[in-house]
Amino acid sequence: MVRARSGTTEETPTTSVGAPGVGRRTFLTGGAGAVAGAAATWLGTRAAADPAAPAPTPEDAAGTATVPWRGEHQAGVVTAPQAFGTFLAMDLADDVDRDALVRLMRVWTDDVDRLTTGRGGLSDTEPELAEVPARLTVTLGLGPGFFTAADLEAQRPAWLGPLPAFGVDRLEDRWSGGDLVLQICADDPITVAHAVRLLTKEARSFASVRWVQQGFRNAPGTTPSGQTMRNLFGQVDGTTNPRTGTDDALIWAGGDGVPAWLEGGTTMVVRRIAMDVDRWDELDRTGREIVVGRDLDTGAPLTGGAEHDEVDLEATNELGFPVIDIASHVRRSRTSDPTQRILRRAYNYDVPPKPGRLSSSGLIFVAFQADLEHQFIPLQRRLDEMDLLNEWTAPIGSAVFAVPGGVRTEGEYLAQRLLEG
Amino acid sequence: MVRARSGTTEETPTTSVGAPGVGRRTFLTGGAGAVAGAAATWLGTRAAADPAAPAPTPEDAAGTATVPWRGEHQAGVVTAPQAFGTFLAMDLADDVDRDALVRLMRVWTDDVDRLTTGRGGLSDTEPELAEVPARLTVTLGLGPGFFTAADLEAQRPAWLGPLPAFGVDRLEDRWSGGDLVLQICADDPITVAHAVRLLTKEARSFASVRWVQQGFRNAPGTTPSGQTMRNLFGQVDGTTNPRTGTDDALIWAGGDGVPAWLEGGTTMVVRRIAMDVDRWDELDRTGREIVVGRDLDTGAPLTGGAEHDEVDLEATNELGFPVIDIASHVRRSRTSDPTQRILRRAYNYDVPPKPGRLSSSGLIFVAFQADLEHQFIPLQRRLDEMDLLNEWTAPIGSAVFAVPGGVRTEGEYLAQRLLEG
Ligand code: HEM
Ligand code: HEM
Repeated sequence: MVRARSGTTEETPTTSVGAPGVGRRTFLTGGAGAVAGAAATWLGTRAAADPAAPAPTPEDAAGTATVPWRGEHQAGVVTAPQAFGTFLAMDLADDVDRDALVRLMRVWTDDVDRLTTGRGGLSDTEPELAEVPARLTVTLGLGPGFFTAADLEAQRPAWLGPLPAFGVDRLEDRWSGGDLVLQICADDPITVAHAVRLLTKEARSFASVRWVQQGFRNAPGTTPSGQTMRNLFGQVDGTTNPRTGTDDALIWAGGDGVPAWLEGGTTMVVRRIAMDVDRWDELDRTGREIVVGRDLDTGAPLTGGAEHDEVDLEATNELGFPVIDIASHVRRSRTSDPTQRILRRAYNYDVPPKPGRLSSSGLIFVAFQADLEHQFIPLQRRLDEMDLLNEWTAPIGSAVFAVPGGVRTEGEYLAQRLLEG
Repeated sequence: MVRARSGTTEETPTTSVGAPGVGRRTFLTGGAGAVAGAAATWLGTRAAADPAAPAPTPEDAAGTATVPWRGEHQAGVVTAPQAFGTFLAMDLADDVDRDALVRLMRVWTDDVDRLTTGRGGLSDTEPELAEVPARLTVTLGLGPGFFTAADLEAQRPAWLGPLPAFGVDRLEDRWSGGDLVLQICADDPITVAHAVRLLTKEARSFASVRWVQQGFRNAPGTTPSGQTMRNLFGQVDGTTNPRTGTDDALIWAGGDGVPAWLEGGTTMVVRRIAMDVDRWDELDRTGREIVVGRDLDTGAPLTGGAEHDEVDLEATNELGFPVIDIASHVRRSRTSDPTQRILRRAYNYDVPPKPGRLSSSGLIFVAFQADLEHQFIPLQRRLDEMDLLNEWTAPIGSAVFAVPGGVRTEGEYLAQRLLEG
């Protein structure tokens, strides 16, 4: 079989969720040869490719899809979550100053431009692994150490640092903190592995890996599009979330007191939350539904309806008790103040268990919000005080980052408004 | 949005690669509700589902596809490789005897029947996580300890034990051995995680986890079907492999000296091979192509043509030197004896790097062959003696298993012909 390749510029399917104004884009894939006209089977007889045959409906559409990365905002925040997400936190080397950071940002910006459009990085030794963009996005977040290295302490937001300590915390250093983070998401795990590798390698004289967290949701094409994922407790997870358009002010920083570099940006919390599936499994189904306040099968509120129907916090049962338990996760994570909502964009993790254990899994809980102190912290505090779910979950890692606004024009680099501001 | 669910028995897409005689099958998915007629977007306005609307072309076809698991052979060997593969080796508890093994095999057989058809296991506490079969296969392999526990030492094949020591070996105990292995593959990572969890849990009074290796290839729908995967050196990996039909005798055990329980079975080698990408990246492109004897971009032999064209081992360049280097991987892994070939079914691995390192990746090298001593061992010995690739790769784990023949009839359980033979 001739490997499917194209030597010419061609239109490819494009995703532009949440990036209004940026339409379909074209990109060049490397290599030469003809698009194979016939599908081949593994271990079967392979049909000879006929270069003259019409191209079939692309069966690799999930691989060729791209997400525009330039704009008011960075991609990867309101982008419909890709199947795979790796979170790479790095610590800057002692000798890194503002000039070095500018160099690093220039290199990474070029990498992002190339990788998200299916091209290898400039110094890429495995450019073939970049050929499947699969909706790749790379999102940069800055930790407190970035501002110290850049000698820009004055620009460092007051909220940028570890979260206040919570009673539920069982934090481990090896999953916490970081001078910066890259969130690298795509619908193909090889694409993610390659992007992580290239971006790490390009940064090697500037920064070292602090932690890496690898997460997953359903693979592309395995569930109807738009279907909410399940976490490894089996719960439908991600139902209630702000929406682009109506809820933009909840997501994107801007306005009074927001520095220019953070405009169009956001704040990012990454918490690694261990889920004790062993003990969860001992609870009966009714109990497990009470804990959250939603039906396990459909994700619908226990007060009835379908997944996306309103939760009725006032409803009571025949005994006069609230249907949605007072301490349930859904009740405790809600507030009557609609400005306090957050955007959740979590990934499952599942790693080999410690000796004697059956499994080790949980959530890479990722939250974006315009204002950390007004939105995330009160919510986390409320859940810390009371939330039935706390019995089975424990945050083992925590980090906070400032996500600068997007790269708006060609030639601009990531975080430029901060570093030159 | 109403979650896509079906309350009735329905035809679903079925894969039957390499399982001749087993055709399309129907299966029952749990739950109630209507199939949503409208796709929804993340963070967007969701269209109300219209239960009367005709079902769209299934966009979740990769999720509903199933692989028949009953037959002459176990599934997961000649099955076109799914995107995700987890290898779970277990050690049996001291008090496990033949009766206990029969119980375990009965439970697992039922689990395999259910999980591979999109249904939760009998004792499954998260049955919703089983709803996406995504071509799930579960393949059982037996290590030496299985025969000891079953008091069936006389049935234990002479070859079943650690491989002979090789010069290239850098084996670590934590990736080696095991009384049994389950190879769990599917096109969805949540499906795999759930199956691994359920099968581990069902076995918990019989066996403990020895090691878990998690691997990946391209996600479904990201590359044209039948396209050979790339490993994390960027090489096209898996081009030359035996084919079902013509090469069955290379894959499936049978004939003289093969015990009844192994008929229709095979032998399985799982080697975790670390790939030193850092040092590999220092080699120039020409050098990297010489190491294997193939073009990095297309996977074609250096003697020309396309990926699946014949390698010309006799060809020489203008200086009279062989085009395919004497020590190249392709030359060294070939033999003039066509009965010595093996079936490779490898997965990439990529785990967080050790402190100070950029990455940690390699291959979960999996080989199936009818006769370990005649096929795998001479080949591995030849590569051990000379193979340019050895400079950048190192086996860090190794295990050998006997894969019993398939479950042929309803009511039969895995490895029954061994345990009752
Ligand atoms: C492993 C830990 C957690 C699990 C398993 C979990 C699970 C869930 C589930 C099943 C729902 C209901 C469906 C949905 O709307 O997504 C939910 C809702 C929610 N969770 Fe969590 N959650 C976890 C941690 C957290 C944390 C740490 C926060 C915030 C600090 C949080 C905030 C929320 C919010 C805001 C909602 C939506 C509530 C609403 O408006 O209906 N969750 N979570
Ligand atoms: C990390 C280690 C390895 C890497 C990166 C690797 C890579 C490759 C590549 C790129 C090819 C050429 C394309 C193809 O036919 O698949 C190949 C072929 C092959 N490899 Fe490996 N390989 C590795 C280890 C091994 C081992 C341990 C064995 C057996 C003990 C093996 C046996 C073979 C065979 C039989 C072929 C096909 C040769 C032919 O008939 O053309 N490989 N390998």
